[in-house]
Amino acid sequence: MNNFQFYNPVKIIFGKGQIAAVAREVPANARVMLTYGGGSIKKNGVYDQVMAALKNHQVIEFQGIEPNPRYETLMQAVSIARRGQVDFILAVGGGSVIDGTKFIAAAMLYDGDNPWDMLSKGIKAKKAVPFGTVLTLPGTGSEMNSGAVITRAETSEKFSFGSPFTFPQFSVLDPETTFTLPLRQISNGVADAFTHVLEQYLTYPVNAPLQDRMAEAVLLTLKEEGPKALDNPHDYDTMANIMWSATMALNGVIRVGVPTDWATHYIGHELTALHGIDHARTLAIVLPSLLRYKQETKKEKLLQYGERVWGVTVGTDDEKIEATIQATISFFESLDIRTRLQDYDVDEATIRTIVKRLQERGTKNLGERADIQIEDIEKILTRSL
Amino acid sequence: MNNFQFYNPVKIIFGKGQIAAVAREVPANARVMLTYGGGSIKKNGVYDQVMAALKNHQVIEFQGIEPNPRYETLMQAVSIARRGQVDFILAVGGGSVIDGTKFIAAAMLYDGDNPWDMLSKGIKAKKAVPFGTVLTLPGTGSEMNSGAVITRAETSEKFSFGSPFTFPQFSVLDPETTFTLPLRQISNGVADAFTHVLEQYLTYPVNAPLQDRMAEAVLLTLKEEGPKALDNPHDYDTMANIMWSATMALNGVIRVGVPTDWATHYIGHELTALHGIDHARTLAIVLPSLLRYKQETKKEKLLQYGERVWGVTVGTDDEKIEATIQATISFFESLDIRTRLQDYDVDEATIRTIVKRLQERGTKNLGERADIQIEDIEKILTRSL
Repeated sequence: MNNFQFYNPVKIIFGKGQIAAVAREVPANARVMLTYGGGSIKKNGVYDQVMAALKNHQVIEFQGIEPNPRYETLMQAVSIARRGQVDFILAVGGGSVIDGTKFIAAAMLYDGDNPWDMLSKGIKAKKAVPFGTVLTLPGTGSEMNSGAVITRAETSEKFSFGSPFTFPQFSVLDPETTFTLPLRQISNGVADAFTHVLEQYLTYPVNAPLQDRMAEAVLLTLKEEGPKALDNPHDYDTMANIMWSATMALNGVIRVGVPTDWATHYIGHELTALHGIDHARTLAIVLPSLLRYKQETKKEKLLQYGERVWGVTVGTDDEKIEATIQATISFFESLDIRTRLQDYDVDEATIRTIVKRLQERGTKNLGERADIQIEDIEKILTRSL
Repeated sequence: MNNFQFYNPVKIIFGKGQIAAVAREVPANARVMLTYGGGSIKKNGVYDQVMAALKNHQVIEFQGIEPNPRYETLMQAVSIARRGQVDFILAVGGGSVIDGTKFIAAAMLYDGDNPWDMLSKGIKAKKAVPFGTVLTLPGTGSEMNSGAVITRAETSEKFSFGSPFTFPQFSVLDPETTFTLPLRQISNGVADAFTHVLEQYLTYPVNAPLQDRMAEAVLLTLKEEGPKALDNPHDYDTMANIMWSATMALNGVIRVGVPTDWATHYIGHELTALHGIDHARTLAIVLPSLLRYKQETKKEKLLQYGERVWGVTVGTDDEKIEATIQATISFFESLDIRTRLQDYDVDEATIRTIVKRLQERGTKNLGERADIQIEDIEKILTRSL
């Protein structure tokens, strides 16, 4: 096992009827900014529950944080929040609203010249306005970590961001808030969480059997519960199990002491930035090709994954690995997620564009062995055509 | 899945050579009290590493926190710490030292008449002096939770205690600190952690498959790594896997949203209080009889545990359950832990004494269904003779 540090102070409040807890979790006398997305929370009753919980607080609303939240939008929120002397933010929504709120919280107190530098130059936040979340869309895990991904619209680029100050103070996870989600968003959430686990698991063994089994625990649960959710998205336990699995997939527990490979997310971000393909779907496109391309260096973990998650035990190692990757593809497709670039009308021209962008950015050394270079990314994407 | 809250802000610093991190984790200018046990840390080099890390701090030492830490001892530490205006405590040791330190930290700032009331009357601490830990003996999980068990010597009683203020600020887990442990302490730690998991798992199903699998992940890892540790206690990875498993067994992750049954610990505490039997050994005595006694109400989980952890798949349900309990007993015995009261020269007279003590205390409604009463405890202990 590798040395590691683990720290996650997010208070999770999980279950039916728990949005009311916001009343006691938001500090008394706080001037609150409520951040949310396109307004679906006004149709499904979540907004009313949140406002009832905040009835003794001053509240400014900021509506309109879009999927793949944009720097430009978030800086508008920063201006409004500063003007309103906001000292607590409550994010209500999915990963985009929560990611965007993390950036707003840090940008409000950024003491350099330009908050943009936190994204483009990786300058670390030294403080942030405290915030909480009410999660309405499981998948990204943002509700229980300190990271975010922010898009710059003018250049179509996605940047990662994080700091010890951008953990939510609390997150309310009420599975009933998911009952009105479009099936497409549920399947995206399951695929995103499933891929998060694989990126922390399909690397090379370091004799960390507990972390391996905990990763497999999340995978097996998503494998079972994902298809159930599409059949019956109003089943409380199914949605509760998906919601908690997605949180556990990216709260740091399963990654302690093991190598990780975030190349699939990195490459997928390019497809979202250029073609607007749903984030989770980009992962389902990239992952199988990446696994095939790196199957020699990921061999031991691929075989273990195949046996323990998909029951693949017959054949040569190569046959077992191919069956395992096929099972993964079939899982994505069972969630109505297509896994080829052609399914999204993306062709070789886009691959050339991505290669050019990565060259300009100086991308190098992705993957758990830091051996995935731009030419490898080109080959991986070509296999996904 | 049941509703739940989860909050655990302990920073874990895990791995070789990490005791040096104490230097930056203890606040600058803090007046530190170092708490430890019988002095083994002076023989194995841990004390020297800790003192080197604290070379820029004022340090008062309090040596002598005993196994099953006593209120009387801890109140001496409280006096010394108050006199020395201590504002940070560093516990170096196993569960007893850490548990004791939690009580010292809360008692120092207790604003009622008598800190004893936190134990005997369950009055909650409202604050505590901040503290960190350097773990040298894996098992209790105290390094990553807020609970403690304290003994009152004059009445031979053990009391549980906990508060949101008694989480360690940080815990350093360096597996190399375990290399000089007596095998008896390693096997005790494995058995304690294994039982912690079973007490959060062997209850009744609430459709929480992720929590079930995470519990099984810890059980399977302890099952594999425990015997290896006895064969080769200087194997770094083995001890690292045991250390992290024991922490994960009781840091709250596996218990979220599921029922728990702490009756085994409750009953075991009586055997330690009256006969000084090692805590872990009392669990190995009580657990098998409790599982047999409650096998009807724990049936579904016992069958799942047998199949997934011990590979028990053949026979009637009763046969499978008995084979599963036998496998559990064999596991304890493979760790050189005997599982009958007679192995410890304890007879029916002790059971009568325990019954009388529980009657005086008004014990009732233990177990996940609150249906274990004093007469049930008597029967369970009788089966363990």
